[in-house]
Order: sequence, then C-alpha cells, then structure tokens
Amino acid sequence: MSDIAPVLDQLDRSIDQSLERLFHLLKIKSISTDPAFAGDCRKAAEWLVEDLKTIGFEASVRDTAGHPMVVAHHDGEGPHVLFYGHYDVQPVDPLNLWENDPFDPSVKEIEPGRKAIIGRGSSDDKGQLMTFVEACRAYKAVHGKLPCRITILFEGEEESGSPSLRPFLEENRAELSADYALVCDTAMWDPETPAVCVGLRGLVGEEITIKAADRDLHSGFFGGAAANPITVLARILGDLHDENGRITVPGFYEGVEETPADILKSWEGLGETTENFLGPIGLSKLFGEKDRSALELVWARPTAEVNGITGGYTGEGFKTVIPAEASAKVSFRLVHRQDPDKIRTAFRKFVEERLPSDCRVEFHPHGGSPAFQLDYDMPLVTKAQGALSDEWPKPAVAIAMGGSIPIAGEFRRMLDMETLLVGFGLQDDRIHSPNEKYDLNSFHRGQRSWVRILDALSGQ
Amino acid sequence: MSDIAPVLDQLDRSIDQSLERLFHLLKIKSISTDPAFAGDCRKAAEWLVEDLKTIGFEASVRDTAGHPMVVAHHDGEGPHVLFYGHYDVQPVDPLNLWENDPFDPSVKEIEPGRKAIIGRGSSDDKGQLMTFVEACRAYKAVHGKLPCRITILFEGEEESGSPSLRPFLEENRAELSADYALVCDTAMWDPETPAVCVGLRGLVGEEITIKAADRDLHSGFFGGAAANPITVLARILGDLHDENGRITVPGFYEGVEETPADILKSWEGLGETTENFLGPIGLSKLFGEKDRSALELVWARPTAEVNGITGGYTGEGFKTVIPAEASAKVSFRLVHRQDPDKIRTAFRKFVEERLPSDCRVEFHPHGGSPAFQLDYDMPLVTKAQGALSDEWPKPAVAIAMGGSIPIAGEFRRMLDMETLLVGFGLQDDRIHSPNEKYDLNSFHRGQRSWVRILDALSGQ
Repeated sequence: MSDIAPVLDQLDRSIDQSLERLFHLLKIKSISTDPAFAGDCRKAAEWLVEDLKTIGFEASVRDTAGHPMVVAHHDGEGPHVLFYGHYDVQPVDPLNLWENDPFDPSVKEIEPGRKAIIGRGSSDDKGQLMTFVEACRAYKAVHGKLPCRITILFEGEEESGSPSLRPFLEENRAELSADYALVCDTAMWDPETPAVCVGLRGLVGEEITIKAADRDLHSGFFGGAAANPITVLARILGDLHDENGRITVPGFYEGVEETPADILKSWEGLGETTENFLGPIGLSKLFGEKDRSALELVWARPTAEVNGITGGYTGEGFKTVIPAEASAKVSFRLVHRQDPDKIRTAFRKFVEERLPSDCRVEFHPHGGSPAFQLDYDMPLVTKAQGALSDEWPKPAVAIAMGGSIPIAGEFRRMLDMETLLVGFGLQDDRIHSPNEKYDLNSFHRGQRSWVRILDALSGQ
Repeated sequence: MSDIAPVLDQLDRSIDQSLERLFHLLKIKSISTDPAFAGDCRKAAEWLVEDLKTIGFEASVRDTAGHPMVVAHHDGEGPHVLFYGHYDVQPVDPLNLWENDPFDPSVKEIEPGRKAIIGRGSSDDKGQLMTFVEACRAYKAVHGKLPCRITILFEGEEESGSPSLRPFLEENRAELSADYALVCDTAMWDPETPAVCVGLRGLVGEEITIKAADRDLHSGFFGGAAANPITVLARILGDLHDENGRITVPGFYEGVEETPADILKSWEGLGETTENFLGPIGLSKLFGEKDRSALELVWARPTAEVNGITGGYTGEGFKTVIPAEASAKVSFRLVHRQDPDKIRTAFRKFVEERLPSDCRVEFHPHGGSPAFQLDYDMPLVTKAQGALSDEWPKPAVAIAMGGSIPIAGEFRRMLDMETLLVGFGLQDDRIHSPNEKYDLNSFHRGQRSWVRILDALSGQ
C-alpha cells in the first residue's frame, strides 16, 4: 500500500480540470442506437484513447461489427483488475423536456449546497467511468505508477443491447482476463451511503399455450362439457404459489440460500419500510413470501410472475366463446445458485402434470440466465466496503438488485472472474430521461473512492 | 277433435301448390340487416298478409321503427294459440359459394331418395313458418274452420337482433296474448326423430378487472413484493370449480333441479355418446360436472366459463412487466329457476372475498336472462310429443338447448304465456351459410305435424 493522502489531495485540487475533461466527453453525441451518430461514437472512443494515453496507458480503439471498443493497459504491481464502463448514451427525446441542450453540459446548484453536472451521459455512464480514469490519473501523477495492473474496457453499445460484447470477449479472452472486474455503472443506496452490489437476480422466461378443442366453440352448445383452456391455464397459474407465497414448483428452491443474519440486519438499517417501498406505487401490502422484508424479497428471493396472459375474446362487449387456446408469459427471477435449465424443466413438468388429458400444451422459451451472487464476506467485497466507508459519511452497505446487469454474468461465464459493482449514481439522476444529472459530489468523491478501493485491493 | 285424415290427405295432394307458394316467398330478398333490402322486407310482409287473407285470416302489415310485423287473427273454438315465425333472412355472402342463385329456389335430390328445397330462408325461417300456414290452409279447406283460435305474428328483424319486438309486444299486449305460443324455428333431433324443445339455458355475463399498483411495474424491481393482478385473477378463476367440476360460488345451484330419470333415459336413447359429441371438435373427455352425460351437461346443467382474459404484455417476445391490471369476461349459463341477479351478486361477492386487501376490482355487467324451462310433463309438451310421434318414424323426444332463443323468454315475461318450440330443421340445413336447404320431407311432414298438434291441442 502506498500513501494515498497526497493522491486524494491531488484530486481535490484538480476538480476543475477533471470537470473540463468530462465536459469534453459529454459534448460528444455518442448515441449508440441511432446510426446517424455512429461517427460520434467513434469520436468518443478516440477521445478516451487519447486521454488514457496522457496517463500512460497503452490504449487503442478496437473495431467491432458495431461501435468500437476502447481497450487500455497499464502495468502495475499487485492484482490485475479489469475496469469496465460504457461511453455510449441514450437518445435524448423528448428534447423539449430538457432545460438545456443535453450535449452542452453545465454545473448547476440543484438545491442549496448541492451541485450537479447536467447533461446526457453525466451519470450513465460517462461521469461514472471518468471517476475511475481521474483516480488513475491522480495516482500516477503523485506516485509515478498505479497501485495495480489495470486493464480498461470501454464499450460503445451498452444502451443498444451490447451485440458485439460477447464476440469481443471471446476473441480477446487472454488480453481481457484479470483477477477480477470492476464496474462503475450502478448507484449508491442514498446520497450518504455507498453501496457494493453483490447480487443480481437471474431470469427464466417461458411462454405456455394451452390448447383444447381444435376450434373456437360456442359456449351455449359446448359450455359445461368441453374443456376451456382459459380455465385450465388459470388453475395452473393459480397453483404456482402456496398460501405462504412460496412457489410450488418441485425443486424450485434448490440452490436458494438464506441471507446471512448480519446482512439482513444491515438491510433493515437502511430504513426501507414496506410503506416506503410500496407506497409510491399505490400499494401497501407485501405480496410474496411471508415474513420477509421488501428488500429481502426483491434482492434475495426468487419469484414466479405472470407477465402476460391472453385467451378468448378480449375486445369491447361480450362474446360467448370457449376459445381453442389460451396462453401466458411466465418469468422466474432466480437467486444464488438456482439453475435456469432445471427450473425451466421443472416448470414444464409442473404444467404437464396439471393438464387434463384432453388438452395439449406448447412451450416457448424466452431466455434464461443464472443469478449473479458474490459471497458477502469475500475479500473483494469487504475491502471495497471498507474503502468506501472511509470516504463517505455512512458505512458502505452490501446490497443486491432485483434486475439484471448482464456484463457481470458474462465476465464470470466467459472470463472466469468475479465482478465488483460499485457506482455513485443516485436514484434521482434521471438516467435515460431528460435533464440527466450526476451530483458533483458523486463525481468528486467517486474519484476519491476509486483511489481508496485500488489501494485496498493492491494490498491483497 | 275433428277428423284429421282428410286434412292430411289434402296436404299430400297439394304439395306442389304449397311449394309454389313457398317459392314465391323465398324469391323475395328480405335480408333484414342490409338497409338496401328494406323494400324487400316489406314486400315479404305484404305477400304473407295477402296469403293469410286467402285462408280467411284478418291480416295486416304493422309498422315498427324497423321492418314491419305481420299480425293475423282467425277465430276458432278451443284454446287460443299465438304462432310466431320470422320472414327475414340472413345475408348471402359469400355469394360465390352458392351453387345456385340464393333467391331462385329449386328442389333437388341431394342424395338418393332425399329431396330438398335449396335457397336462402328455405329452412330459416320461411320454409318452417309456411309449414304452419299450409296446415291452417288445408284444415280450413276441408273443415271450413280452424281447430283453435289462432293469432299469427311474423317478425322481420329476427336476424338483426329483434330491436322492435319488445316495444311491439309491449304496445300490443292484449292483442297478442294467448293461451300459449307456438314457435317453428328449431330443429329435429335427427331426420327420423322429431323434438320438442322444453329448455333453453339463460345467461349472465360479467367482466371483472383486477387492479393492483397504480402503474405497470418492472418485475425486476418489484417482482416478489408487489401484487400481480394476473396472479390474483388466475387464483379467482382457478377457484370457480371444485374437483368434481361443480361451481363453487355460494348459492349458485339454488333453483337448479335434477332432470327426471325418465327424461335422462330418453336422452340416453338418443345415442349421443361422449365420443360423438366431443370427437368432431378434437376432444374426448367431458370437462364439467362429473358423472353426467354430454347432453345433460349442455341441456340441463349450469356452467361458469371464462370467455376471455387479458393482462400484461401479450405481443411477440417477452416483457418483464407486472401490469397494473388484468381482466376477464366470465359467463354463466343458467338452467331452470336460477336467478340471474342473485348469481351476479353472488359471483361479485365470491371475487371480492378472494381479493387481497391491496387490490381493487371493477365489475361490468354484460346482460342477464333467466333460463326457459317447461315442465317435461305439462300437457302442452306431452300432447305435442304424442302428435309428433304419430307422424314421424320415431317417437318425439323432449330436448333442451344449450344456447338461447330470446323470444320464448319474452313471451313468458311480457305476455305471461308458455312457448312450445317445435321445428323441422335438420343439422345439415346450412342455415346462415351458402346453399341453405330444407328437406322436402321436413316441409311436407312439418305441415302434417302442425295439423296433428293443433288437433291435439284443440282437445285440451
């Protein structure tokens, strides 16, 4: 470990210069979904390469079938880390809702004592990725070296589904493999509480279609005698949970672990009551497994949800039809070590066992991915938590997320390394929306946080 | 009772003349749904009035807000009967599927020894109503009088929802009230077995919408914690039947009677096996209440069917949404003395009791009508059965129908009289379709049947 105090001082002194560099990047209209901005995407990649070179990275723009990647390397002692971010941004429509030109960034006081950088990409993800770049720059300036061996990967297609990412990881497996990955694309728990995201739920999507008669029937002629596929489907879906909200598919909970008591306690400490969680969407009662908090339910418990259902006559008025078929889209959120393939198979069996002998079922898979889960006590996590706790007013919390960030799964699957997800976004950053912002505090303390984290990891 | 043998002889002798009269009526393009044929509808009414006058009826065209009614009266001793039929017909599209001009009727041998009248309206309902008119004509010719006091009501809007019928019955209640009504708009059981329809199921339609959160939710952020209205709806609908196929709504079976053993036995004798009933629609197992035959299920048992369901994302692919609402269209077929209002109320309570405290439900009624049911042993039924059994190769059977013929309910409700539904249509008549036909045998023996029925009723 080196002395980090002068590095933090250097960051404090150079905040204006770091802002200036960020503004350069923010002004480039690198909207990845719109082909009209392909040139701007390349410009953003080229700007990053030039900037990384000034720090001493060996950096290059790397072509793909889509927008280019930026890959950069810097020698160092200690562990080898891969830092990931993305330089592409979301479209800016509706433009009329922006208070300023989305590509003419500025710093504004958004409430007394709180300043923010306004502009498209300020939070997602240009501002976030630059916190890491600035941390490296300051460290190098002070110590003439970096605390770890660092590889950087910046993607330009994150906002359009990352079509080139897998092939690129595949082709450059050796170059990009490191001891672990660092990703800066997530949020803090609140403006005073930093967070390490250690869990992301996986997903299994499955469409089921129940078929009965070979045509639509008149319910007067056949009602009461012929199988009704909507009724069959309703019975199956109504059977998916028991009276305690647990999912009844046999074997479903295989691989699900109970969350450690101290972690549950730290989540309780976050003050996210049921009322806080459900109130804003007009609800008041938790619906899933009994006797678990809202945060545990969405962060650490698996689900079975019906996302869509259709069958028979659904237009205006009424039609006394018994339809030939009815279908539903069902998804399962997975946690811990649940196996997507096993769960798909178990669900299909569950459906088939409930099918009247006269009916048939067709299954159509819609993707499956396992959950991402780090051990709460692994050194990567605890060191990062310690480093973050040193920087921010409140101790860092290990959280999870109900949704998915595919990159973490890809790094594990393709490059066999774990990913540390740390970010400094806030809930009110309006990412993907007009007037996106990034707190100046996030930008500045984010830089300082990375210095502390790299320093902590270098001591591994 | 008079001597009917010479009347039957008269019908046998005059079959060519009666066919000629029917052809006149069939040539009139009285399509009630198309305003372009309004003049033809009136022409059909006028032709009927003139024809009834030749028999001695006091007949007139009676204007309504839509197409006119025909009302005719003839004195007679014995009971007063109201005969109902409709002179309007279905459109003829697709015209290219007709082998002949739909309004240029002809008699053809459709299989060895089987002749049929081909043309739009031949079975539904011009051919059927003329069986009654010809019976009256022959009776009058032979005996100089009719066996009963007869009122005739011909409607011109049956194929377009009968919008003027209720107001007309209301305004002419005294004139149209009789001891009972006779309707000739139904079918025989098979070409050798005549039928009296004594039961028609009623209907209650209800749309329910379950609402949970005040917006669509991302299942990653809220899945497992927020109420899913599709799941709530599925549980309710899946709960509508018990494991024996009985409907679980409290009080639902109030007013439902067990069908008499001898009636069930006569239905068994019809040879309608489960295989015959379900095979043509690709099914093999009865789905409703256990241990009842297909005919009993659709003729004499009530149902709860989901006719439509929708919620969440139903397009191509997948969307991990928890929708704000989900809805279903549910209908109940009623039998015997079930009360539509009570059943609607009981169902709503059933839904509300299963609603999580967080969810709301909205109900939207879609009509309700009680079942029509005659006592199987009432003289009107048994006399008609006896008369029909004398005419046809096999004894007449008292059947029911799963669907509805609103006129029978209207006569009971508005004119306080029961309705005898007897018709000579056959399953292969292709009513509402191209190449509609009516067996010559139906037309001829239908006439003879009405002579026998009127004679039997006159002895009441």
